[in-house]
Amino acid sequence: MTDYRRLRVALLGAGAVGSQVASLLRQHADELADRAGARLELVGIAVRDVDAKRDVDLPKELFTTDADSLIVGSDIVIELMGGIEPARAYLLQAINSGADVVTANKALLATHGPEIFDAADQVGAEVYYEAAAAGAIPIIRPLRDSLAGDRVQRIMGIVNGTTNYILDRMDTEGAEFADVLADAQRLGYAEADPTADVEGYDAAQKAAILASLAFHTTVPLDAVHREGITAIDKPMMDAARHAGYVIKLLAVCERLTEEGGTESISVRVYPALIDRAHPLASVHGANNAVFVQAEAAGNLMFYGAGAGGVQTASAVLGDVVSAARRHIAGGVGVGESTLANLQIVPVGRVTTRYQITLEVDDQPGVLATVAGILSEGRVSIATVEQTVVESADGESGVARLVIGTHKALEQDLSDTVERLAASGVVERVVSVLRVEGN
Amino acid sequence: MTDYRRLRVALLGAGAVGSQVASLLRQHADELADRAGARLELVGIAVRDVDAKRDVDLPKELFTTDADSLIVGSDIVIELMGGIEPARAYLLQAINSGADVVTANKALLATHGPEIFDAADQVGAEVYYEAAAAGAIPIIRPLRDSLAGDRVQRIMGIVNGTTNYILDRMDTEGAEFADVLADAQRLGYAEADPTADVEGYDAAQKAAILASLAFHTTVPLDAVHREGITAIDKPMMDAARHAGYVIKLLAVCERLTEEGGTESISVRVYPALIDRAHPLASVHGANNAVFVQAEAAGNLMFYGAGAGGVQTASAVLGDVVSAARRHIAGGVGVGESTLANLQIVPVGRVTTRYQITLEVDDQPGVLATVAGILSEGRVSIATVEQTVVESADGESGVARLVIGTHKALEQDLSDTVERLAASGVVERVVSVLRVEGN
Repeated sequence: MTDYRRLRVALLGAGAVGSQVASLLRQHADELADRAGARLELVGIAVRDVDAKRDVDLPKELFTTDADSLIVGSDIVIELMGGIEPARAYLLQAINSGADVVTANKALLATHGPEIFDAADQVGAEVYYEAAAAGAIPIIRPLRDSLAGDRVQRIMGIVNGTTNYILDRMDTEGAEFADVLADAQRLGYAEADPTADVEGYDAAQKAAILASLAFHTTVPLDAVHREGITAIDKPMMDAARHAGYVIKLLAVCERLTEEGGTESISVRVYPALIDRAHPLASVHGANNAVFVQAEAAGNLMFYGAGAGGVQTASAVLGDVVSAARRHIAGGVGVGESTLANLQIVPVGRVTTRYQITLEVDDQPGVLATVAGILSEGRVSIATVEQTVVESADGESGVARLVIGTHKALEQDLSDTVERLAASGVVERVVSVLRVEGN
Repeated sequence: MTDYRRLRVALLGAGAVGSQVASLLRQHADELADRAGARLELVGIAVRDVDAKRDVDLPKELFTTDADSLIVGSDIVIELMGGIEPARAYLLQAINSGADVVTANKALLATHGPEIFDAADQVGAEVYYEAAAAGAIPIIRPLRDSLAGDRVQRIMGIVNGTTNYILDRMDTEGAEFADVLADAQRLGYAEADPTADVEGYDAAQKAAILASLAFHTTVPLDAVHREGITAIDKPMMDAARHAGYVIKLLAVCERLTEEGGTESISVRVYPALIDRAHPLASVHGANNAVFVQAEAAGNLMFYGAGAGGVQTASAVLGDVVSAARRHIAGGVGVGESTLANLQIVPVGRVTTRYQITLEVDDQPGVLATVAGILSEGRVSIATVEQTVVESADGESGVARLVIGTHKALEQDLSDTVERLAASGVVERVVSVLRVEGN
C-alpha cells in the first residue's frame, strides 16, 4: 500500500447523508486514498447528541458535541448539518482556519452563498457543494467547468424529488394531491411538514444555486419567483394529459435578451405543462433531472437520484476527493464567478406560453368576447377547445374553454386573466398554467 | 475591461470542430477571459492547406502549415486534426514544450493514451479530452471528479450518433439498414465509408476511454470486444419491438466480481436489446447518452449531442477554459489514475441475458430437444414463444422459436448455440442478441 500523506477530515452532522459519508469514507479508505493521492482520515463527527441512534454503525469514539475543537486543525470540513445556524458559523470558522469545505446545504448557499464564497476567496480556500444542487446528479462541475466555454441559455430542472413523486403518481394513477401526499409522508418521500417541498422553497434554493453558476451572477433567493404545487388537482392533471402534456414542478433559469440587446436573467419555480415527448416528461418517481440548453452544446440532460442518504453521499465524497487532490496538488481553486452580474428581472417581464381554462356562459358570442379581451391584452391565441360542461340535470348552461396561447408577456397575461375574470361572460377561471419546453 | 494576463492558444486543425472553436474563441473573447481569468489569444491555426474553404470566416493570417513553430511558445495547444500521426507527435511536442493540451482525438487516446498521459505526468502538464468521449456531453469530469468517491459498477452508453440514427429510423419507420444508411450518408449523418461507425470502431474507442476513467485501469483498444450493426435487419427490429425491446448499439463497461471476490472488468460494444421503459430506449436520432450505475449514487444518465461541429466545440472550449484556469492558479492537475489496474476479461467470461431466435422443424418433441440442449449448456430459459412460419403454400413445416434466457455465461451461450445449429431439429439460427439493462 502506498504511503500517502494523511488529511484530517471533520464531519459535521450524522443524519441520513452524514452517516453514509462516514461509513463510505471508512469502508473505501484504501481506494479513496489511491484516487485522492492522500489518506482521508475521518477525525471526528460533530453531533448534538452522541448517543442518538444512527443509520449505520460507527465507532462511538468518533462522535463529539464539540464542533469547534474538531474544526481546528482539519484539512477538510464536511458540513451536513443543514439549516442556517450554526452551519454558517462553522463553515466560516473552517474556511478561516485554512480548511477546504464541502457542504450539501442548499438553504445556506442560497441565502449566504456570497458571504461564504468571499470568505473562501480571501484565504484561497475552496467551497465544494455538488450535493446542494441536485443530490447525486453531477451538475456543478458540468456547469462550472465543462460548459465554461459555452453560453447557457436556459436550464429547466426537476430538482425536487418529493413533488415529482407526487405529481407523477397524480398523473399515472389519477390520484388526488392530498391522498398522494399522505402516502408520500407514510413512505418517507415527504416530511411531516411538507411545506419546503410542496411550496417550492427547496426547488427555489436549488434554482438560485444553478442560476448563479450558469449565468455567473449572484442570484439572491428572494429574486427567485416561486409557486408550489398545492393548487394542482385531478381535473388539471386530466386536462393536461388530454392535451398531450404532463405537469411538472420546474425550476427555470433563463437568459433573456431585451430590446436593445441588454441581457438579463429570470429565475422561477412553478408547476408547468410540458410536452410528453420532452425528455423531462419521462422523469418518474422521486428522480430529478436538469435539462440545459447551451448556445453551442445544444440540449443536454443530467438525470439521477435527487435525494437519498447514500446517493447524496456519493456527491459529497466526490467533493471530498476533489478537495484532497487540491490540497496535494496546490494551486487555488476555480472560485465563484459573478463577473457577468446580469440583472434579474421579475416574473412579469418573462414570456412563456400559457394554457388558460375558463368556465363561460354557453351562449353565442361568448368566444368572440373572450377572444377580444385576449387580443386587447396582447395575448395571442394558438388553440381553443370548447366543451359543454354537463351538470346533474343534463344542461348546465356552462361551457369550458381551454385556450392555448402563443408566447405572451407574463404581466400582459395576468392583467388579461384579471379582465377575463371581471368580464360578464366568464363564470370561473379554472386554471392558468405556463407551458414550458420549446 | 479587466487587464488579464494573455495565454497563447494554438489550434491544430480547422475542420468542422476546429473552425467552430476558432470562431467561438474570437466571438466570445471577453466573456471567456472573465471566466478563465486570462485572455485566450488564438495565435494561429495549423492546417495542411491554408487556402482550403472553411465552415466559418476566419482571418487569413491565422492559418499556417508550420505546426511546429506554432506549438513552440504556446500555453495551450488544441489538437483537432484527428488520426494518429502527426497528431500524436504534435501532442507530445506540445506537452514537452510546457503546454497544456486539449484534444478530441478518441482514436489517438484509445491507442496511445498511456504514452500521452505519461508524458504529461512527467512534465506536470495536463491533458483535457472532454470532447473525445461523448461529443458535447459532459462525462469526463463527472466520472473523474464527481464520482471519484463512488464505485462505478457499470456504464451503458449510446456513444455513436450515426448508428443510433440508423437504428432509430429502422425502429420507428420499419426501414431496412441499407436504405437508412444511404439516407444517412446523403444527409451527412454517415461518412462515405461508414465502417468506423457501423462496425463499432468509433464506439469501441470511446468505450476504452470511458472504462479507463471509470475503473482506474488502462484499457487497450484491443481488449474491447466489438461487434457492429450491419447484421441487424428489419425482422430483428420487428421481433424486438414485438417483445417490448429496442435494439441499440451499446458500449458496456462493467465491473465483475468473480468467484473468490476478485474484481475484473469487461468492456464491449455490440447491438443489444434494451427494454423500451429504460431511459436509454428513448434516446432518438443522432443523440448520445451515457447511463452510469454507481454503488452509492445509483443510476445516472447524461444525455446530449454526441457529435456536430459546434456542439463538440462547446466541450473543447470548456477544456480550454479549464486549462487556462490551471495556468493561472498553478498546481498540478488530476492526472490519469490507473492504480486499480483491474484485469480485463474476454467477452466469453461475461454474463448477460440473451434472446435466441431459431427456425425449427414444426414437429412434436422439438421444443423438448431444444430445451434439453440449452439446459445441458447451462443456459436457463426465461420465456419461449413459438409461432408457425407461413410459407407461400400455407404449410411450411417450420416453426419459429424466440427464446429469452436468464443470465448465462457468454461462452456457455455461444457453445450452446453451436450445438443447437448442429442438432437435427434446428433449421436455422436466425439471431442471437444480448439483452442489456437490468
